[in-house]
Amino acid sequence: MDTAALPDIRFTKGHGTGNDFILIEDPDGSVALTPDQVAALADRHFGIGADGVIRVVRSAALTDPMAVAAAQDGAEWFMDYSNADGSVAEMCGNGVRVFVHYLFENELVTGTSVVRVGTRAGVKTVTRIQDPYHDGTAAWYSAEMGNWSFPESTDRGADALVRIDDLDVPRAGLSVDMGNPHTVVALATDDELDGLSLVAAPEVSPTPQHGTNVELIVPGESAGEEGSLRMRVHERGVGETQSCGTGSCAAALAARFWAGAGAPDRWRVEVPGGTVRVDVRGQEVDLAGPAALVARGEVSRA
Amino acid sequence: MDTAALPDIRFTKGHGTGNDFILIEDPDGSVALTPDQVAALADRHFGIGADGVIRVVRSAALTDPMAVAAAQDGAEWFMDYSNADGSVAEMCGNGVRVFVHYLFENELVTGTSVVRVGTRAGVKTVTRIQDPYHDGTAAWYSAEMGNWSFPESTDRGADALVRIDDLDVPRAGLSVDMGNPHTVVALATDDELDGLSLVAAPEVSPTPQHGTNVELIVPGESAGEEGSLRMRVHERGVGETQSCGTGSCAAALAARFWAGAGAPDRWRVEVPGGTVRVDVRGQEVDLAGPAALVARGEVSRA
Repeated sequence: MDTAALPDIRFTKGHGTGNDFILIEDPDGSVALTPDQVAALADRHFGIGADGVIRVVRSAALTDPMAVAAAQDGAEWFMDYSNADGSVAEMCGNGVRVFVHYLFENELVTGTSVVRVGTRAGVKTVTRIQDPYHDGTAAWYSAEMGNWSFPESTDRGADALVRIDDLDVPRAGLSVDMGNPHTVVALATDDELDGLSLVAAPEVSPTPQHGTNVELIVPGESAGEEGSLRMRVHERGVGETQSCGTGSCAAALAARFWAGAGAPDRWRVEVPGGTVRVDVRGQEVDLAGPAALVARGEVSRA
Repeated sequence: MDTAALPDIRFTKGHGTGNDFILIEDPDGSVALTPDQVAALADRHFGIGADGVIRVVRSAALTDPMAVAAAQDGAEWFMDYSNADGSVAEMCGNGVRVFVHYLFENELVTGTSVVRVGTRAGVKTVTRIQDPYHDGTAAWYSAEMGNWSFPESTDRGADALVRIDDLDVPRAGLSVDMGNPHTVVALATDDELDGLSLVAAPEVSPTPQHGTNVELIVPGESAGEEGSLRMRVHERGVGETQSCGTGSCAAALAARFWAGAGAPDRWRVEVPGGTVRVDVRGQEVDLAGPAALVARGEVSRA
């Protein structure tokens, strides 16, 4: 890793349920980071370290067609999201909450609790809400995550077999398309979920063409109109993570399907990094959860 | 992880060959961090993230007996080192270089290239030197690492059998005591070294009472008075790391022993995070390598 690639810029570090980001405030679009610079910032040992880098930029300052469209559609701010390896990503469900929290905390947006955010996956509406589960001091946001579908037949309740280290028998999995691919597997008990090493990627057959994220869940008790589940997730190409926004949605959609007619549309999802809430609205889904900023500073090489 | 445990302080982030640290400048010893606060700072997802937290404090400001002794022994500055989990550690070979680099860059020490540093493992002398291997722009330091020994009989050139994932046959290992325990294994080729997954801890028999760090090395060509080797390391309780200071010393000591009479006392060691140099001086050993500061800032929770 080349420390010389670190750009001399100011940054803020934040996270949503442990999915952590470096935010670069660049209202006028004057900071053009190369993939190498993004990767140097995100490197946890040689740089600052994060799962992704988010440039906070006015839509009107960019020439990217999605940003131009966002500006025309009234989304003043654009989430320019890059993965830790420097590649560009369309959208990040945990990142968009942290993005909007940054806008509020730095008074880049005032006088409203609803923000329309430009992303490469289209304009997403994000709403500041009360933390529904805790003492209410944490900042919570609900964000549109877009359309979902079951890409395979659901006639048998599952369409894949998933082999998981530490489990003797392959388990049945349900494919969920959230724009990215997911395979959800229900386990029998909390002990079974907690006992997995989850170091190796679960083997899914038939093998998905572009790989898949795998969610291992244990459905819990429903509370009134709200279902609940616990989840661990193995992200494609990454490994186990503290949290996965689209994965939480996929897990809730699978649990809701398996629960049958009359199942709740709202699900509380416990991930290793905290608690999120999923709301199914027809063929669309929203994800709500906390967002926090923890530090700010500047690259200062010596 | 409790973000509320994050202390409101200023910090600098730096690293030595990818072993990274959060430095807290506290000349007067007024910042007393709890283990929970240290762990919150070092958490890579919910905090800032680092392998360790180093408080930069005057020896005379502390009541710790090792600091009192350091002050009496003329070591103005004390490296108060904590592991990422909040536990206190005696010494860190990569950390002490970054510590001294911080002192110079912030003009806490001036007018000399030799600094005596108080640590819980005693006073260590650290000397600023020219980078011996590259273009000379990187800051390099040589640090006293203390005494070494072979704790077991060396009559047969090895005293342990080491089983390593991806290798069919157990390999012979040599135990090295650097204050902490190491077991060094020589592999035949670079391909063999590069092909290891090194996810699972190698199994060493007889089983060391307190576990052991395992260094896998491939000796290379000597250049004049200097030997060379490549190394990967599995740190006890941690997993594979970019670099391990005492491990680099142990690797050089084992390679030197195996090379027999007339072997060089100086070794160039290539680790995944960069290059270091080991100098054997009788029963003591020095470790030289780079140190870099990359960012500074403040905890700012929102």
